[in-house]
Amino acid sequence: MPQISEKGRQMPASPIRKLVPYAEDAKSRGVKVYHLNIGNPDLPTPPVAIAAIKNLGMTTIEYGHSAGDESLRRKLVGYYKNVGIDVDYTNILITSGGSEALLFGLMSCLNTDEEAIVPEPFYANYYGFSLTAGMNIVPVTSSIENGFALPSIEEFEKLITPKTKAIIICNPNNPTGYLYSKQELERLRDIVKKHNLFLFSDEVYREFCYDGQQHFSAMNLEGIEEHVVMVDSMSKRFSACGIRVGALVSRNKDVISTALKFGQQRLCPPVIGQLAAEAALDSPAEYYANIQAEYTRRRNFLIETINQIPGVVCPNPKGAFYAIAHLPVDDAEKFAIWLLSEFSYNNQTVMLAPASGFYSTPGLGKSEVRLAYVLNIDDLKNAMTCLSEALKVYPGRTN
Amino acid sequence: MPQISEKGRQMPASPIRKLVPYAEDAKSRGVKVYHLNIGNPDLPTPPVAIAAIKNLGMTTIEYGHSAGDESLRRKLVGYYKNVGIDVDYTNILITSGGSEALLFGLMSCLNTDEEAIVPEPFYANYYGFSLTAGMNIVPVTSSIENGFALPSIEEFEKLITPKTKAIIICNPNNPTGYLYSKQELERLRDIVKKHNLFLFSDEVYREFCYDGQQHFSAMNLEGIEEHVVMVDSMSKRFSACGIRVGALVSRNKDVISTALKFGQQRLCPPVIGQLAAEAALDSPAEYYANIQAEYTRRRNFLIETINQIPGVVCPNPKGAFYAIAHLPVDDAEKFAIWLLSEFSYNNQTVMLAPASGFYSTPGLGKSEVRLAYVLNIDDLKNAMTCLSEALKVYPGRTN
Repeated sequence: MPQISEKGRQMPASPIRKLVPYAEDAKSRGVKVYHLNIGNPDLPTPPVAIAAIKNLGMTTIEYGHSAGDESLRRKLVGYYKNVGIDVDYTNILITSGGSEALLFGLMSCLNTDEEAIVPEPFYANYYGFSLTAGMNIVPVTSSIENGFALPSIEEFEKLITPKTKAIIICNPNNPTGYLYSKQELERLRDIVKKHNLFLFSDEVYREFCYDGQQHFSAMNLEGIEEHVVMVDSMSKRFSACGIRVGALVSRNKDVISTALKFGQQRLCPPVIGQLAAEAALDSPAEYYANIQAEYTRRRNFLIETINQIPGVVCPNPKGAFYAIAHLPVDDAEKFAIWLLSEFSYNNQTVMLAPASGFYSTPGLGKSEVRLAYVLNIDDLKNAMTCLSEALKVYPGRTN
Repeated sequence: MPQISEKGRQMPASPIRKLVPYAEDAKSRGVKVYHLNIGNPDLPTPPVAIAAIKNLGMTTIEYGHSAGDESLRRKLVGYYKNVGIDVDYTNILITSGGSEALLFGLMSCLNTDEEAIVPEPFYANYYGFSLTAGMNIVPVTSSIENGFALPSIEEFEKLITPKTKAIIICNPNNPTGYLYSKQELERLRDIVKKHNLFLFSDEVYREFCYDGQQHFSAMNLEGIEEHVVMVDSMSKRFSACGIRVGALVSRNKDVISTALKFGQQRLCPPVIGQLAAEAALDSPAEYYANIQAEYTRRRNFLIETINQIPGVVCPNPKGAFYAIAHLPVDDAEKFAIWLLSEFSYNNQTVMLAPASGFYSTPGLGKSEVRLAYVLNIDDLKNAMTCLSEALKVYPGRTN
């Protein structure tokens, strides 16, 4: 029988999803599992979006435009205007989630074996997309000690080679929750300009900023207008991950026209999802205010509670709905598997995403986990109790 | 400003979609355009599928499973059983259309620079997927003279090198409408076995077989069970291209587990589309009989009418809803553009897909077009009148 590809063998299982079989196992034993492993929002999708689906007027669900429905693209222009980003609908390509936007962007901009520098820990699937696109990710390490702030310009410049073609950031950051300041972004702008790079900015958590902090978009960096490629998604903002609607946004017309050719291959993004997305954009300002308030409560609870567990250190994130915590364990992945396969407290346990999968430097993140605070406060409370009790009895506890 | 990638520059615009701007132009001048260029079924999506969407019970549209909803995968097992294919739900991975199934399959099975032999003309996006996957398509030419039958074993074997890893067929064929016989498939089986290759079989048009011909699935070839990777889609069968639901099916567990890793990267296929697909599978036998009868009528009308136009030769396809016609023109792409930009008859015109985009051997198919007979008989009649009148006056007419 023929062998599968090298790329396929190298492709790691998703650190967010690879423990799913253990969770299914726990559930089959009747144990309730609190999912802190995945950013799958639990809040209601905007009722206007649900209504748009239920009021479907089509009798034949035909292919849509490869660039996405023009009406959705035009409506997004208004949404971006509201958040201070000035673009035209021709700068927008609708994609099957932010995932496809990043993949199309990487394939459009980077040659085989070219490099993109990415602050690590980074969203694990970036690595998978880089394998698919045939380019390489070069990590620049950020640290839990300063809450995962942007590494210094010097650290970036040390990594720049003739193969460097791009920098990728996620802001607010998945998995760290770090929100880059305007000053940090301007430092990036200077590197991007000096070395003629693309700047990929994944801004799918734009609305999730806390403590009065404002999000500053890479699209508003002056002087690198044609270098910036923004990745966006409706998934998180509208608690609608399953509709699979995202966007690639760039003022660089070559990037959009090239990405469109990749888009033509796959014909079109999901038509029903686009109807839902278009309707969701009618959500009133209070919709965003409500989700922000809810996630602020959750974050406050999580960070306060988890830092009371002896040996745990978890910086307070200013954005997104993730946090990275250091745990007093020998190996966070072993611990996460143990939580699902050997531990339970009141017949409950917790599913964590081991952070090592978010680092590409071997050995880093071994004692860290990513926590997605997408559970209501009661569930978060139970999850924290489980974690606390588990750390009391875990055989691989270190301090 | 940084340059876009070589891959992006090489990626051709889709031959099916690249003339869309000309069509939009024609429409803006008030000309009605009959679309024979794209296989976008016009029949109603099964009402049960539409109802499933309208009866959406979710209030939060969360991520689904990366392999697709288990309920859909299990239901597909029953569908496949009905068409004589015996698989387990773990042999099935749900994808965003057949497009993603083929891409995941190619990336899972072929190394960079490895080769897949494909009878040409072939579905144009195969070339785009090969560029994305970093492998190469090696065409083996089939000919309009014998209705695009499978080339001989000798022709295949001439092309086999140490880099050959797969053969890709589409059966019934897009763009030719050719339906491979069991004997032809068994010849392929022998090559596949002898050279230890994967056999990719794109069977999305399985139900579209005419004149009492039966479809024989590559999944039923004996002795190469672990070599066969089937690409499937709900798009054509259920006139539901916009839901973006397809499937990768293989008894080779390594292929499915590897493809799943690519699937985890993009998180999940569209959730609402999967609800529609699952419901559509409840369509009664008469649903399939009706669409078959309707497409038979259309094919019969198209083939009879078009072959009456002087200088046109169009073999009678036994499957799918495409035909390739030779036209008496200097250059079918020039002709197709001329139809949209300079010609109209009774304020109507026709959009064709130039066939050169379906060949990878340069120069082939220059006088051929692909016709998708997805219009009702009245529209087909008008489209054929336009084509006939156009050929009377086209300045580049050759014979």
